[in-house]
Amino acid sequence: MKLKDKTCKDINEWYLDTIKDADLLSPSPVRGCMVFRPYGYSIWENIQNGLDPLFKKHNYENVYMPLLIPESSLNKETEHISGFSPQVAWITHGGEQELGEKLCIRPTSEVPFCEHFSQIVKSYRDLPITYTQWCSVVRWEKNTKPFLRTLEFLWHEGYTCHSTEEEAVCEAEKIINLYSDFCKEYLAIPTITGVKTPSETFPGAKLTYTIESLLNDGKALQTATSHYLADNFSKAFGIKFKNTDGIIQNAYQASFAITTRLIGAIIMIHGDRKGLILPPKIAPIQAIIVPIFKKNMNENNDIKEMCNKINLILSENGIKSKVDISDKTVGWKFRNYEKKGVPIRIEVGINEVINNQVTVVNRESEGKYVLNNDSITLTSKIHEILTNIQENLLHKAENKLIKHTSFALDFDEMIELSHGVEGFVKSYWCGNTECEEKIKLRTGLTSRCISLKSDSVIKSCVCCGADGTKIVYWAKSH
Amino acid sequence: MKLKDKTCKDINEWYLDTIKDADLLSPSPVRGCMVFRPYGYSIWENIQNGLDPLFKKHNYENVYMPLLIPESSLNKETEHISGFSPQVAWITHGGEQELGEKLCIRPTSEVPFCEHFSQIVKSYRDLPITYTQWCSVVRWEKNTKPFLRTLEFLWHEGYTCHSTEEEAVCEAEKIINLYSDFCKEYLAIPTITGVKTPSETFPGAKLTYTIESLLNDGKALQTATSHYLADNFSKAFGIKFKNTDGIIQNAYQASFAITTRLIGAIIMIHGDRKGLILPPKIAPIQAIIVPIFKKNMNENNDIKEMCNKINLILSENGIKSKVDISDKTVGWKFRNYEKKGVPIRIEVGINEVINNQVTVVNRESEGKYVLNNDSITLTSKIHEILTNIQENLLHKAENKLIKHTSFALDFDEMIELSHGVEGFVKSYWCGNTECEEKIKLRTGLTSRCISLKSDSVIKSCVCCGADGTKIVYWAKSH
Repeated sequence: MKLKDKTCKDINEWYLDTIKDADLLSPSPVRGCMVFRPYGYSIWENIQNGLDPLFKKHNYENVYMPLLIPESSLNKETEHISGFSPQVAWITHGGEQELGEKLCIRPTSEVPFCEHFSQIVKSYRDLPITYTQWCSVVRWEKNTKPFLRTLEFLWHEGYTCHSTEEEAVCEAEKIINLYSDFCKEYLAIPTITGVKTPSETFPGAKLTYTIESLLNDGKALQTATSHYLADNFSKAFGIKFKNTDGIIQNAYQASFAITTRLIGAIIMIHGDRKGLILPPKIAPIQAIIVPIFKKNMNENNDIKEMCNKINLILSENGIKSKVDISDKTVGWKFRNYEKKGVPIRIEVGINEVINNQVTVVNRESEGKYVLNNDSITLTSKIHEILTNIQENLLHKAENKLIKHTSFALDFDEMIELSHGVEGFVKSYWCGNTECEEKIKLRTGLTSRCISLKSDSVIKSCVCCGADGTKIVYWAKSH
Repeated sequence: MKLKDKTCKDINEWYLDTIKDADLLSPSPVRGCMVFRPYGYSIWENIQNGLDPLFKKHNYENVYMPLLIPESSLNKETEHISGFSPQVAWITHGGEQELGEKLCIRPTSEVPFCEHFSQIVKSYRDLPITYTQWCSVVRWEKNTKPFLRTLEFLWHEGYTCHSTEEEAVCEAEKIINLYSDFCKEYLAIPTITGVKTPSETFPGAKLTYTIESLLNDGKALQTATSHYLADNFSKAFGIKFKNTDGIIQNAYQASFAITTRLIGAIIMIHGDRKGLILPPKIAPIQAIIVPIFKKNMNENNDIKEMCNKINLILSENGIKSKVDISDKTVGWKFRNYEKKGVPIRIEVGINEVINNQVTVVNRESEGKYVLNNDSITLTSKIHEILTNIQENLLHKAENKLIKHTSFALDFDEMIELSHGVEGFVKSYWCGNTECEEKIKLRTGLTSRCISLKSDSVIKSCVCCGADGTKIVYWAKSH
């Protein structure tokens, strides 16, 4: 699927069909909530298996904070509460009793983490603290879309405390780069890293770092964020420590998160007209082995045996393989695993048994190969194809990102680009919120991020013509 | 700590101190909710790492169901709703808007699973379905106690669909045995397996299997349960399939769960006057290496080097080890890791460096050994001690369980036992709820379970004297 490929059906319809056909999600009776089916959930488990050790290597420790937050706690940081209060779910009754104080379901966990930090941080020796948590959060979104924007979603969130501003800023930057590297290496998703404009900054943060990706509908997706919180929460919650000079001061903090929206990004970046294509590194099944039985054929048993043997060899060599010996038709099986985006299909029929070969089909390139069925050749070749698919998916996505990023030098050009172009429009910006608003109003594009690579040469703001050294990425966004 | 050891302080106070001293939990501003600190949470992660592959081996697949359940869905199974409605947290507002229909936070997930099953089960070919989920649930408990009874807790829950009654009953039995084996093998917790009496059966289930363990306060703990749901939920939610004869029928179901209360059981079964003792198989740190520096001593560097070398060797050989080179005192470190229940302490000081030996202290037996510091001896000896600790903890707990289980042949004996004895009292029971109620009223003991090993010889009910073949375990319970 090309960016808004006109030959295929409506991309929203395609997106919903792909999710359904691949058995990723089912609807739930609660608007905007999703049932993660086994195949969909195992993609998330693979993302967890990739990310969790990465963070543990960087000295992060997992914790679990309560789901419920009292209204009075949420009210402590004023920007934060005003940002989130329109979005929280309120619990007013426990059993048959009305509660003395309303509780909300966490929309994010700055509040419980900071309340906890205020209890445990006492000395510079306690710092830095670097905690992460895997859980679900609830935000009362008006318009929802599976994976990309939902009432409840699963995420990985983190909160830190540091003794200096520099360390906290560095941490926020380090984490956005970790997330970006993870997206690139595991999900084959290239991203643009930058800083949000003040109007798009997280409520309560001083700086928000973001990675933005480009989906096949031409819209940008905020793929992960990390925040430099300065001492805003630290002051509101009283996170104080005695520094090396014996003086009591507030800690500096960072926070960050990445969500199940990643799965939506995978679908919308790599999918094609046949449905899902999964990057091998997070595919629940990397190679599906399909026996091609014929009715009453003597060799059916040999076929089955060969399938099981191949499955054993591949599994033993670290390849996630599976045999489908169900009584479904061969055609159904081929289509089913294509829709599920399984990277490799291995076919074993009578010819394969006779010649001791297997037929291998690459989901991504659609290439077909005949391989000798000796375990060394087979294993190394399958590993090679998986690596190729992983690299090709990234390569294609990178090319699309480059192709669909334009540069506007003046406002007219920007308006013109916003009509035709799908993807990012870059331009110089003076830093003034009024210009940002005007651009949004006239072009329908929102600022996605300020590039970290800003020019040293002073250029003119695309909107007002004043000095502008900041390069901003603009796009329609999810 | 012996069962209610009178020489030590009040056991409830000891329990709360142990949790605090080991940095397992912190209080939260919401009554009855807990902050799982890194050390406490990593015990749960280790439980997950043990249980999850076990269930996957038995063809269970993880899914994620929504946190929120509409009131109308909860009302579908009448016994279930009447059992849970006094305990659920109700959401009445999303953002600033009042909801058209109240939603509750899942107290358990029969409802969302069954609604989903009704969508996906169509034919006998779709069965069996065996799903599990890791998540948190909320129950509005009046009296809470860290880990053992909390408003929110983390758990592993599972739901199945089968084509026959027999298969569903077998599954419920299989799972309770899996949980029991896990408790024994990983947590060194022996349990009594049985079936709940009708009055103690899960709301909506036909049969509830339970494993009960004995804590050091003399009370029983319901450690895990599995339920044969028959077709109760299946009928309420319309889970129907075409069987092999082409006839539409309802599916039969099982459900089950095990929770973070396990950590409370570990504390209350294995702990001693010094605090926590962790079974090596789920200990976040199995061996702590403590350098014994002396001020301005030339050999301090050699000590540090030796510690790091040992740490590397142990880690490479699959032992979870850690060096504490912080500037805390040696005494503080010894005490700290004792309180945290780390199974093995390895001391490295000047003598150890000179003699190329290490001093090893066993947390459980308090035995002290001097070992040669060659990697093969050290690794195999540490593995051996870990195995010994794991076995000893189980052995001791089994002995306590046997010692504190008595048999009452008549009602007077039962009343007498209920005064003095801590632990289980076994007796024959006719199966009549009135007798069960009377026993509860007169002795303060509740029925924990009906033993699966009932006698073939007919004896008299301990209460009414009628024929009673059922052997029931009674106890004070958490």
